[in-house]
Amino acid sequence: MILEHIRIILVEPAGPLNVGSVARVMKNMGLSQLVLVNPQCNPWGEEARRMAVHGEDVLAQARQVDSLPEALQGCYHAVATTGRDGTVPVPLESPRVVFPWLIAQNAPSAVIFGREDSGLTNQELHYAQRCVSIPANPVYPSLNLAQAVAVCAYELYQATPEDIPPPSPPTTAPLEALEGYYQHLEQVLMNIGYLYPHTAEAKMEKFRRLYGRADLTSQEVALLRGILRQMEWFVKQNHKK
Amino acid sequence: MILEHIRIILVEPAGPLNVGSVARVMKNMGLSQLVLVNPQCNPWGEEARRMAVHGEDVLAQARQVDSLPEALQGCYHAVATTGRDGTVPVPLESPRVVFPWLIAQNAPSAVIFGREDSGLTNQELHYAQRCVSIPANPVYPSLNLAQAVAVCAYELYQATPEDIPPPSPPTTAPLEALEGYYQHLEQVLMNIGYLYPHTAEAKMEKFRRLYGRADLTSQEVALLRGILRQMEWFVKQNHKK
Repeated sequence: MILEHIRIILVEPAGPLNVGSVARVMKNMGLSQLVLVNPQCNPWGEEARRMAVHGEDVLAQARQVDSLPEALQGCYHAVATTGRDGTVPVPLESPRVVFPWLIAQNAPSAVIFGREDSGLTNQELHYAQRCVSIPANPVYPSLNLAQAVAVCAYELYQATPEDIPPPSPPTTAPLEALEGYYQHLEQVLMNIGYLYPHTAEAKMEKFRRLYGRADLTSQEVALLRGILRQMEWFVKQNHKK
Repeated sequence: MILEHIRIILVEPAGPLNVGSVARVMKNMGLSQLVLVNPQCNPWGEEARRMAVHGEDVLAQARQVDSLPEALQGCYHAVATTGRDGTVPVPLESPRVVFPWLIAQNAPSAVIFGREDSGLTNQELHYAQRCVSIPANPVYPSLNLAQAVAVCAYELYQATPEDIPPPSPPTTAPLEALEGYYQHLEQVLMNIGYLYPHTAEAKMEKFRRLYGRADLTSQEVALLRGILRQMEWFVKQNHKK
């Protein structure tokens, strides 16, 4: 079942009622993997359990982690969600475009939801390859967290074909491999004087977006890291002279 | 704006958090008319207001009525929602089919949601012309009320065209005219011995479904009632003999 590959990640959720409601609608829509990054409430307390109703197994099995990269371990694709408007530094897409794409990948993936009050930071947005914004009235576009998850889970369920093809071995590189590449790239670009501390973040975001779109395979990441190692070797040789 | 014509009706909601969340997502999706039939909680208390956030104006303007027919006064179309499966005595359709149809009618209309625990009764379902069931995992298809409203409001918003045609005067008969016809029809069919008390309800449901699908105009309802009046006259004449 494709949906079992898809984890819902909540970053620093503060409302136990929301966490419980998320578990319920996940169960409604055939999703089972809930990951909580540094929750600001008790996700297993009475309030959350009351809202989860028959989604209590999803809630009980939820994993708690310290950081977003940890939550994304093992994922091949990630979609971020935002209720913010033009201030977001990435292209915003519609759920009805992005979730069928995510389902079609048929690989371990994540959909990331931000804090109730402030959403995801720009840095967090860049861990994802695509960013979804739920179409809403410009007068008040910010949905309640549990309702935003409901709309996205509904779209995921709607996009899931009745006849599911056997999962093919993913060719795309896992996100942690990409992340390792970005760290390596930034280091090397600093070393060769391409990046400066005050420009590094903005430039790196452009690279993340570019490679994020490209759906790199593990082989391609290995190739790219090969270039970086070669550059490092070259830098070392030149310093010796 | 088409969405301003569409009212959301909650029948006997018991959870103030749900009512508040419904008001919020209505505001998110450009809906403003909330009608509460015989609410089993305080819809304007602290809990509801806390969940409504910037949808508090929708909540404050919500109307409270005693019955579903009263809530439907002035509507030309009504869609019921259900989380129940095959036990529902009407055809179930997908939100993505029904809501674009409802928007295209461009007339005062209603979407009806039932009680948190038991939904709408069969009798209540028959006040609507079409019945929507949100696609969900058969293992646990029953959504939280506020999340069900979120999905439906999202579909209504998605179905609303950017360029809205000027509202055309509705030719369809208002629902109360239909209701008046059904009552009249039942009475006449009893009088002529077509209906018996133990078969009346089941038979009348079939008529409701038939006429509900037909989108009758006011003129057509007048025609139909003319037939009934003629039958009544005929019955009276024969009793005299």
